[in-house]
Amino acid sequence: MTVAEVFQEISAADFFYRNRDIAGFTSPSRAVYSTIRELVENSLDACETMGVPPDIYLRLSHESGPVDGPGVYSVRVEDNGLGIPGKIIPSAFGQVLYGSKYKLRQTRGQFGLGGKMALLYGQVTTHSEAQIVSSTGPKDRVTEVILRIDIQQNKPIIMKNKTHPNKHHWRGTAIEFKTEADYSRAMSKILDYMKQTAIIVPYANITFVDPRGRLYRFLRGTTTVPEAPTETSPHPHGVDVETVQRLLKVTNAKTLQEFLRKHFQRIGDATARKFLQYASMGQRKTPRNMTPDDVVKLVNAMKNYEDFLAPDSSCLSPLGEDLLATGIKKELGITDDDIAQGHAYVGTLQRKPATYAGFPFIVEVGLASSKNIPTEGKILLFRFANKIPLLFDEASDVSWKVVNNTIDWRNYKVAPGETPLAVFVHLCSTKVPYKTVGKEFIADRPDVEHEIVNAIREAGRTLKLYLSKKEHLATERKRLDVFEKYLPKIAQFSTKLAKQKREPEVSTLLKSVMKYGPANEDEQEQE
Amino acid sequence: MTVAEVFQEISAADFFYRNRDIAGFTSPSRAVYSTIRELVENSLDACETMGVPPDIYLRLSHESGPVDGPGVYSVRVEDNGLGIPGKIIPSAFGQVLYGSKYKLRQTRGQFGLGGKMALLYGQVTTHSEAQIVSSTGPKDRVTEVILRIDIQQNKPIIMKNKTHPNKHHWRGTAIEFKTEADYSRAMSKILDYMKQTAIIVPYANITFVDPRGRLYRFLRGTTTVPEAPTETSPHPHGVDVETVQRLLKVTNAKTLQEFLRKHFQRIGDATARKFLQYASMGQRKTPRNMTPDDVVKLVNAMKNYEDFLAPDSSCLSPLGEDLLATGIKKELGITDDDIAQGHAYVGTLQRKPATYAGFPFIVEVGLASSKNIPTEGKILLFRFANKIPLLFDEASDVSWKVVNNTIDWRNYKVAPGETPLAVFVHLCSTKVPYKTVGKEFIADRPDVEHEIVNAIREAGRTLKLYLSKKEHLATERKRLDVFEKYLPKIAQFSTKLAKQKREPEVSTLLKSVMKYGPANEDEQEQE
Repeated sequence: MTVAEVFQEISAADFFYRNRDIAGFTSPSRAVYSTIRELVENSLDACETMGVPPDIYLRLSHESGPVDGPGVYSVRVEDNGLGIPGKIIPSAFGQVLYGSKYKLRQTRGQFGLGGKMALLYGQVTTHSEAQIVSSTGPKDRVTEVILRIDIQQNKPIIMKNKTHPNKHHWRGTAIEFKTEADYSRAMSKILDYMKQTAIIVPYANITFVDPRGRLYRFLRGTTTVPEAPTETSPHPHGVDVETVQRLLKVTNAKTLQEFLRKHFQRIGDATARKFLQYASMGQRKTPRNMTPDDVVKLVNAMKNYEDFLAPDSSCLSPLGEDLLATGIKKELGITDDDIAQGHAYVGTLQRKPATYAGFPFIVEVGLASSKNIPTEGKILLFRFANKIPLLFDEASDVSWKVVNNTIDWRNYKVAPGETPLAVFVHLCSTKVPYKTVGKEFIADRPDVEHEIVNAIREAGRTLKLYLSKKEHLATERKRLDVFEKYLPKIAQFSTKLAKQKREPEVSTLLKSVMKYGPANEDEQEQE
Repeated sequence: MTVAEVFQEISAADFFYRNRDIAGFTSPSRAVYSTIRELVENSLDACETMGVPPDIYLRLSHESGPVDGPGVYSVRVEDNGLGIPGKIIPSAFGQVLYGSKYKLRQTRGQFGLGGKMALLYGQVTTHSEAQIVSSTGPKDRVTEVILRIDIQQNKPIIMKNKTHPNKHHWRGTAIEFKTEADYSRAMSKILDYMKQTAIIVPYANITFVDPRGRLYRFLRGTTTVPEAPTETSPHPHGVDVETVQRLLKVTNAKTLQEFLRKHFQRIGDATARKFLQYASMGQRKTPRNMTPDDVVKLVNAMKNYEDFLAPDSSCLSPLGEDLLATGIKKELGITDDDIAQGHAYVGTLQRKPATYAGFPFIVEVGLASSKNIPTEGKILLFRFANKIPLLFDEASDVSWKVVNNTIDWRNYKVAPGETPLAVFVHLCSTKVPYKTVGKEFIADRPDVEHEIVNAIREAGRTLKLYLSKKEHLATERKRLDVFEKYLPKIAQFSTKLAKQKREPEVSTLLKSVMKYGPANEDEQEQE
């Protein structure tokens, strides 16, 4: 009674259609959140690649169905980015695992999947097609494509593909389609997402017209766009047998030395020579005659050789300490005056580039303390990766682990849950070690965790100075309170005792024992 | 200065190779854990499909490299399951998104990905090929295939494909390959995994020879294998436009009524007729002349129509209350005597089939209290899905949320963190809403959450009786203590007062006030 199993092949589009949960398309509320973030992030990438300050316009409008539950909405996103060449549009939007994000370079998108998942979700819930309009330059014609995705075949079905004159010398991309959404349940997360995006992309204008007709504008605080990341070759510490095998197949290098120099970052002739000696890869080996065992030997040597230069970070585009501080102050409503007067603290810190599994990364952290920060019994954590805010599954994130389990906050004069403290962690990498395709949280790779710990500890030292001073001030204030309370009584009593009529003036005496100027009014109010 | 973006297409194998993190292949320690579980789960599925009690043999041996860090290991898994037909072996192991798991039926594997990821990881870390040996029956020849995966093309490269005579009348599959692993760091999780698998698959024999030469045997407690799940048609509540469109393309039904009856579960002629009336789908519509708008209308009506029968649960294969209780008692070392004497409690409960997004599911829970359960300030939670233990990312799981945030344990006489309590949650479904391809935790779909809450509440009522009785016993014991302490003194004093020499016997009196027999020694020790 053998039961025969039926085997079948499915397309990549079909796989992600069946498993849309794992890409963040779980429910109508989660799906609309994911749709918006994937499209906004593609748009931001398209602008930053060109170095232009992003202008993103986003509109979500209710089409049919209930407004307080899942209904049909139309979504439109426009940007002033790079634009997509007309002949690429169908595949770029209608074919899963086709895209420009499969490079060693820091981008928000990393799976080349998000935008297509948004379209796919719209299609399977509303059966409608998507309209994409794009221009690659002010002098180019505008291409308009209307398409659907053939999920079983993983290929676009083109309903319309036309070019139009570019009267307004426009460059950018606009996309519009219908999708099922539950805005009432997703609203707060969507607005959170935009607000946090405005922190980490302080040079972007984001306009959002919501289904209730409300206009949200997040205006840029600067037009400086961080240097666009460049594409890079792999670092020798980050390769595996497959990568080297692929390079060996296509290289035209005649010697191993040339091969190493040409296809890996930070390897010059001298390093290549020294490394090959270390690897005992004799002169007789060339890229052509490497056996599988040689490749394994080479890769193992690459992983273990310690004298390679640290990975090139030109493929990374961190925000920088100043911009991060600007974003934080904006978000928390902290002014420079607050900081100057010691009522609030904002400290940011960028670590040097580091590497995990051969992928370069940079950790930036911010620590802020201010009475504006709600304590709620915990430390407030903001997580960012490649300039994307991460809003879900906080407790599974490496930063959460570091902040709540590793750091002993008492060393920094912080009483967790009592001291108002916000921690910002930004990880930039050519490959963020996300644990889900939905880009919600970062895996606890030891090297990454280590850098986050060190960044927070380093930043913590300055925070400690601020909090120590604050503590000292509080003690001092108590001391003053005693003087303020008793000096007048002593004066009164002494006057009586000396049978004088006029009490001596105590205020001068009081001022002389003050160390730091008058106590702050705000803080007194708070107490 | 337009920067041209380079677009490219990558294969599904390449996608998962680049993003192996999301399938649980993060590091050498995590990868060996994932490798073992994926292979063991495929083997268990292969046995259960046939209804034979699984006999799984697993061997992990150290090949080269350090033993206290990442090194090269060889892994071998053998089962007595269904076997795989020779001509299917190459694709079943060497092609991503090819498999037998894309059906509406409860299986452990759900993405058809895990086994291939294990091979792929082995290949890219050690450059070695995989050997697969399989027989589909005692009279069939044994096929031996040695293969590698062409990752860029997503197809198998066959190095050897031979059949051998089946001298031992063997049926099953054996697979062996080399992979990078860090056993010293993965060991405790691997053993945890096996122990918990032995709870949830109490009818399996699992033998594990570890790299240190130790033999672990998990012996079955029964040979009863739960009824194998059958394949099912989709439930009308669980379909989307894409599903219906696909069915319309291939159906030979002449009328919509026939179409509904043929392709969806629990729809007979009467239901189909009533539903079509509800959907106002007139007589003139047939599967052939449905417009896209008609399809959307039909699907929306299907989702909203409330009189469909609940989804068919014959495609599910829960463990059952008895087997679950057996597993729990085994794992926690609780004997039937402990329970009979009131020193421990094990209660299990199976809910009726329910549905989320049209997928049927069954929740089973167990609650156990015993002094063997460590409290550690929290409730011990064991999570299972389709007979797989889930060990990672507990805090992101729906069950964790329910146990720690939703249930008010005081209602059940439980003081969380003080009362020793273990909660077991098992979710069976044709589609477990995992949030990651690594199958680590379950998304909080409202319907699933609701069922888990109700299951625990229902099971909690019996637990409450036990704990109330225990509390009552404790009070009673205190009362007895008072008698025990003072009765002899009173006897002594009265004897003196009455000037008698012999004190009266108080033990009979003491026995008469005991309600429940003598206090338990163990429990006294504990206090």
